[in-house]
Amino acid sequence: MIISMKLHATKQEIDAVCDRIKEFGYKVHSIAGEERCVIGAVGVGDVTACLESLEAMPQVETAMRISAPYKFVSREFKRNKSQIKANGVEIGGDEFIVMAGPCSVESEKQILETAHAVATCGAQFLRGGAFKPRTSPYDFQGMELEGLKLLRKAKQETGLGIITEVMSDRDVEMVAEYADILQIGARNMQNFSLLKTLGKAGRPVMLKRGLSSTIKELLMSAEYVVAHGNPNVILCERGIRTFETATRNTCDITAISVLDELSHLPVVLDPSHATGKRSLVPSLARAGVAIGADALIIEVHPQPEKAVSDGAQSLTLPQFAAMMADLQPYIALWKKSRVAELATA
Amino acid sequence: MIISMKLHATKQEIDAVCDRIKEFGYKVHSIAGEERCVIGAVGVGDVTACLESLEAMPQVETAMRISAPYKFVSREFKRNKSQIKANGVEIGGDEFIVMAGPCSVESEKQILETAHAVATCGAQFLRGGAFKPRTSPYDFQGMELEGLKLLRKAKQETGLGIITEVMSDRDVEMVAEYADILQIGARNMQNFSLLKTLGKAGRPVMLKRGLSSTIKELLMSAEYVVAHGNPNVILCERGIRTFETATRNTCDITAISVLDELSHLPVVLDPSHATGKRSLVPSLARAGVAIGADALIIEVHPQPEKAVSDGAQSLTLPQFAAMMADLQPYIALWKKSRVAELATA
Amino acid sequence: MIISMKLHATKQEIDAVCDRIKEFGYKVHSIAGEERCVIGAVGVGDVTACLESLEAMPQVETAMRISAPYKFVSREFKRNKSQIKANGVEIGGDEFIVMAGPCSVESEKQILETAHAVATCGAQFLRGGAFKPRTSPYDFQGMELEGLKLLRKAKQETGLGIITEVMSDRDVEMVAEYADILQIGARNMQNFSLLKTLGKAGRPVMLKRGLSSTIKELLMSAEYVVAHGNPNVILCERGIRTFETATRNTCDITAISVLDELSHLPVVLDPSHATGKRSLVPSLARAGVAIGADALIIEVHPQPEKAVSDGAQSLTLPQFAAMMADLQPYIALWKKSRVAELATA
Amino acid sequence: MIISMKLHATKQEIDAVCDRIKEFGYKVHSIAGEERCVIGAVGVGDVTACLESLEAMPQVETAMRISAPYKFVSREFKRNKSQIKANGVEIGGDEFIVMAGPCSVESEKQILETAHAVATCGAQFLRGGAFKPRTSPYDFQGMELEGLKLLRKAKQETGLGIITEVMSDRDVEMVAEYADILQIGARNMQNFSLLKTLGKAGRPVMLKRGLSSTIKELLMSAEYVVAHGNPNVILCERGIRTFETATRNTCDITAISVLDELSHLPVVLDPSHATGKRSLVPSLARAGVAIGADALIIEVHPQPEKAVSDGAQSLTLPQFAAMMADLQPYIALWKKSRVAELATA
Repeated sequence: MIISMKLHATKQEIDAVCDRIKEFGYKVHSIAGEERCVIGAVGVGDVTACLESLEAMPQVETAMRISAPYKFVSREFKRNKSQIKANGVEIGGDEFIVMAGPCSVESEKQILETAHAVATCGAQFLRGGAFKPRTSPYDFQGMELEGLKLLRKAKQETGLGIITEVMSDRDVEMVAEYADILQIGARNMQNFSLLKTLGKAGRPVMLKRGLSSTIKELLMSAEYVVAHGNPNVILCERGIRTFETATRNTCDITAISVLDELSHLPVVLDPSHATGKRSLVPSLARAGVAIGADALIIEVHPQPEKAVSDGAQSLTLPQFAAMMADLQPYIALWKKSRVAELATA
Repeated sequence: MIISMKLHATKQEIDAVCDRIKEFGYKVHSIAGEERCVIGAVGVGDVTACLESLEAMPQVETAMRISAPYKFVSREFKRNKSQIKANGVEIGGDEFIVMAGPCSVESEKQILETAHAVATCGAQFLRGGAFKPRTSPYDFQGMELEGLKLLRKAKQETGLGIITEVMSDRDVEMVAEYADILQIGARNMQNFSLLKTLGKAGRPVMLKRGLSSTIKELLMSAEYVVAHGNPNVILCERGIRTFETATRNTCDITAISVLDELSHLPVVLDPSHATGKRSLVPSLARAGVAIGADALIIEVHPQPEKAVSDGAQSLTLPQFAAMMADLQPYIALWKKSRVAELATA
Repeated sequence: MIISMKLHATKQEIDAVCDRIKEFGYKVHSIAGEERCVIGAVGVGDVTACLESLEAMPQVETAMRISAPYKFVSREFKRNKSQIKANGVEIGGDEFIVMAGPCSVESEKQILETAHAVATCGAQFLRGGAFKPRTSPYDFQGMELEGLKLLRKAKQETGLGIITEVMSDRDVEMVAEYADILQIGARNMQNFSLLKTLGKAGRPVMLKRGLSSTIKELLMSAEYVVAHGNPNVILCERGIRTFETATRNTCDITAISVLDELSHLPVVLDPSHATGKRSLVPSLARAGVAIGADALIIEVHPQPEKAVSDGAQSLTLPQFAAMMADLQPYIALWKKSRVAELATA
Repeated sequence: MIISMKLHATKQEIDAVCDRIKEFGYKVHSIAGEERCVIGAVGVGDVTACLESLEAMPQVETAMRISAPYKFVSREFKRNKSQIKANGVEIGGDEFIVMAGPCSVESEKQILETAHAVATCGAQFLRGGAFKPRTSPYDFQGMELEGLKLLRKAKQETGLGIITEVMSDRDVEMVAEYADILQIGARNMQNFSLLKTLGKAGRPVMLKRGLSSTIKELLMSAEYVVAHGNPNVILCERGIRTFETATRNTCDITAISVLDELSHLPVVLDPSHATGKRSLVPSLARAGVAIGADALIIEVHPQPEKAVSDGAQSLTLPQFAAMMADLQPYIALWKKSRVAELATA
C-alpha cells in the first residue's frame, strides 16, 4: 500500500498513521517529500481492512493498494491460458468457438430450426434464454422449465452444447441439469449471492461484464465464483454503457486484450448485444477474431421480425451462414497464431 | 408508437410495416415526408412486442414508444405524492426524514452507541447492513442473522425504525422479520428475481438507483415491485458512475426533481455513497433538502477509522450532530413549502 | 512520485528506473515489498517529463504524481477565497450573484426587455451570446459585433454588467471591449490557444467545465489563464455528459464543493444547461445556493418559444421573477454562513 | 419532425402547436392516440429553428427531427466512398494506409530516424506534432515552426506525406504550407471557429473524434468543414472517455462501421491514443484492419522512455516493424474485400 498524507500533516499525525499500519501487521517506510509525506507499507495482512481504516483517518489524502485484489483468476497465479471444457469442447484452446442461437427460446420449431442451422454452419454451442431478465415486468419473462426442455431436445438432435442464462440462486441447480454452460447476465454480474451459489454449481460459468463494470470488477466477480469452488469461469465482453446512443452499447474491444494480459480465463465477445443492430454484427465479429477473443456468441433467429426479444440485433439464418463464411480466413489466421502461442507456453 | 422508415423505402415495404402494426391491434397513420415515410400507430396492444418486431424489419430505421413504459409508479396513475409508512413514520409526507447509521453492523456496542446518538439528533430510522454486497469475496460479508438481531435490539432501545439491505430472494422473509424498510442495493436494482419476491414481502422497499441505470430504468424496477403486489416503494438517488474520479460516484441531484415530475413515489438522497468522502456530505445533504428530497440516508460511525467498510465516507457522531444542526433552517424551509404543496393537492 | 514496478522486475531493472529518476534531479526511496518493488521519488524537478519517461520504461507498472499538477489556482497557494471584481461587483464575496439573460442576443427589443426585467429582479449581470457555438453549421451563429453593441446599450440603460462568450483568440480583444466578463464555453475549455490569449485579455474570465472534463482538468485550464497573466478566473459547473438522457446534461453539483476544497476561485452554477428543461431550473438553482455556489447563471427569454436557441431551458420573465423570490430565504442563509466564513478567514 | 404532446393537452394547445409548425412552412398531420396526441410535420423548412421553438412550448413533451442534420458528409448525398488524395496517396481507396511517427517532433535526429524507419516498414505518412495541446501550461508545448521545418526535411528525405496538428485558426495557413494533411485534435473537434477556417485551408483535414463526442457530432463537425468549402475530410476514431480506467480511453471500434454506414468519408483508427499502452496497440490495430478502417495512425518513437510526451503508448522502431509484419495477412484480406467492394460500387 501507498499512503499519501495531506499537506502540512504533523509528525504526530504521520506517526498515528504508521502505528495503524503496523497494527495490521505491515512494515512501514515513510518518505518525507518537499511538500508532503508518503508512506509505503509492505508485508502480508488484510489489505482491504487496512485501506478502509487508513482512508477514514483525517490526515490521509489517499491510500492505494499496489497488488491486484484478485488472485486465482490472475495471470500471476496461472501463467498459461485456461482451457475450459463443456460438452466435450474446449474453450480457450486451439479451436475458435462459436455460440449461436436466439435471444429467447420461443417454441420447439424455432429452437430446433435454429439449432440445426447453426450446427451446420460450424457453431459448437446453442444459446437461448429460458429465463429472461427484462427491464419491464410486462414483457415476456421466458419459457422457464419448458424452455430448458426444448434446449435439451435441440442438443439431442444436433449434439450442440447448451449455454443458457440463470438469474437466481434458487434456479442454479435446475438450470445446471440442462445447461453445459451457465450464463450470467450483465445485470447479475455483481449479484454476489448468485456468484457464491455458482461456486458449487458443477458447471462452467460464462460471466458477462456489467453495463458499467470495470475490467477489474469483472475479474473480482470471476474471483467470487472461483474462490467458492468453481474454477471454470469464462469471461464475456458485451459492450458497456456510455453516452453514445448510435449503438445499443459501446463495445470495449480492447478489454479482450487487457483481460488476456491480466487473466488466464478465456474471453468471449458478444457482438450482438455490443451493437444492438444486425448490420453491425459481422464486422465486429471479424474484429473480435482478429484481436484474439476465444469465442463469439451471436444472436440468430429464423424470423427476427417475429422474435419476442432482440429481433433487431438477430441475424437471420442465411446472414449467419454468410458471416461464418466471411470469418473463415480470419479464424485460420487466429488458429495459426494460437497454435504457435500454445507451443511456446 | 412512431416508426420511421429508411430513406427510399418502397410502398410495398411501407405496407408490410403497416400490416405488421395492425396485426398487433393498432391503427396506422402513415405520413409521407419529402425524404422519408413516418408511421404513427395508435390504440391499445402489446407495445413492447410490437416494437421488437418492427425494429427487426429491414426497412425500419427506428421504432419508438411515445407512452411511458411504467404505469403504477407514474404521476399519471396517481396525481398526489405517496406517503409510505414504516414504524409509524410517514415518508413522503410533511416531515423531513433522516435515516442514519453505520455501513455495516459490526458489534453490539457499535450499533447501540450509534443508534442512541442518531436518535438524539432527530433521525427517525437506523441504517446498518447485516448482509453486505462486497466487490471482493475476501472482504467482510456482514454479520447476517446476528446483525439483524442487534438491529432489533437497537430498535427496542431507541424506538428508531430499521432499514437494512436484503441481497437475495432467499433472505427476504428473514430480513423482513427484522426490518421496517427493506433496502435494495444499487447492484441489485435489476435483480428481477429479487424484485418479484419483494412484491410479496409485506414491507416497504427502498430501491437504490443502479450505478449506470437511467431514471426510467429505476422507475421500471419500482414498477416490478408494485406490479407484483407491493405498492410501498421508496426511490433512492445515490450517485451514478461517470468518468469523474474526484468523487466515488457522481450525484445526479436533478434526478430528484425529475423523479418528482414522473412519479408519486418518495425519493431519498444518499450523500454518503454519492460522494464517498466525509467532508462533502454536509453540503450535499443541504442541497438535497433544498431541491426537495423526502429524506436523507447518511452513514455515521462512532470510529470511522475502525469501520470495516466505508469509513472514509462516514461521519463521526459529533459531525453528524453538527450536520443536523446546520440542516435545521433548510428543513424549516422545506417543511413550509411541503405543507403548502399538500394543502393544494 | 510513486513508481510501482511490475512483478518479477529484476534488481537491474529497478536500478535502471532509479537511475532515470535521479537524472531528473529527484532522490530515490526504494521499497521492496513481498510481491513487488515500489519506488518513491522526492525533490524538485520536471514531474511531467519524468513521469512520461518512467511510464515508457518496460518494467514500470504505473507511475503517479502525488502533488497537484496546478499551483496558482490551488487552495494551497492561496488559503482565502478570491473575490473577482467586474463592473464594480464582487464575485466570491459576501453577495450572492445572479447572471441572467437569453442564450443569444436576437434583437434590440429582446435584449433590452430582458435586461430591464432581470435587473428589476435583482440580477447583477446580463448574459447573452453574440458569438454562438452551434453543433450545426446551418444554425444561427450569432449577431456578432452588432450583438455586442446591443449588450452595451443594455448595460447603459440598466447598469448591469455584461458576460458574453468569446470563441476564438482572434475575437478576444473585440469582445473584451464590450464585456465585463469573458465567457468560455464548455467546448472551448481545452482550446489552449484561446486560454493563452485570455491570459492577456485584461478582463475576468468565466470558464465553463467541458462536457467530459474532470474537475482536475477544469483547474488545469484555469491554471493556463492564470499562468499566462490573468488571475481573474471564475469557474462554472454546467453539467457533464453521462449515459442519462432524461436531462440535457448531468449536473455534477458536488463539483462545487470539491472545487471549493481544491481552489480559491469562485464557482458559478448554470442550472439551465445542466438540465436543459425549464421546469427543472428553479429547484436546481435552490440546491446550488444551498451547496454554496458563489453565483448562478440563468437563461431567461421574453418569449422562449420564439428563441433562436435554447428556448426549452429558458425561463420566461415571470418565471424568473418567481424563482428569484423563491430563492430569497436560501440566499439569506447563504449570506449568513458566508459572512461568518469570511470573518474567520 | 415528430412532436409528442403532453398528456391531457387540450385541443386549443394542440392547435397552437400546429399553427406554430405551419408558420415554419411545414404541413401538419395530427394523430390522436388513446393517451396523447402526436403530430407529424413534413415539408422543407428551418428544422432546427422550428424544433427549438416547439420544445419551448409548454404543452410539448418532445420534438424530434427524423432526417439527419448533416447533408454533404452523408451516404445519402454521396453513395460511394470518397477517396482523398494527399501527397499522391489515396485514403479511402484500395490501398490500406499507415501513418506513423512520434507524438511530438523533438529533434532532427529523432524525426529523421523515425521517418526512415517507418518508411522502410511501409508507412505512407509521417505523423509528428509541432503544436501540442497539453493539459498543463507547464508541459512542453511543441517546437512550432522549427518542428514544421524538420517535418519538411523528413519528407524531402523519405517521400512520406506529412500529417501534423493545427490548434488555432491563426496557424492554419502556416501549418498548411508544411502539412499534406491537417490534423485536428480531439479537444478541438468542436472548435467551430477553427473548423470554419479549415474550410478555406486547401488541404485535407483529419478530424479526431472528441473525447465525449457522439458519432453524430463528429459528422456535424465534418459538415462544418465541408460546408465552408473543403470536401476533403478524413474522420478518426481515437477512443472516447468512459468510466473504465484500465485504458487511457475506450476504443469505440464499432464507430468505424457506423461511420461507414452513415458517411462516405474515410475513417482512420488511432490505437495508440485509444489504449494509451504500447502492449495493447498491435492487437487493436489488427482489429481495426479487420473491421474495415481505411487507415491506422500509430505513435512510434526511437526511444519511448526519452519521449517528451506519450512515451508509454509509443512503439519502438522494432516493435513497429514487428506489428507491420503481423498486419500483412490482415491487410491482404482487407484489400481483397475492398477491391470487390469498389468493383460493385
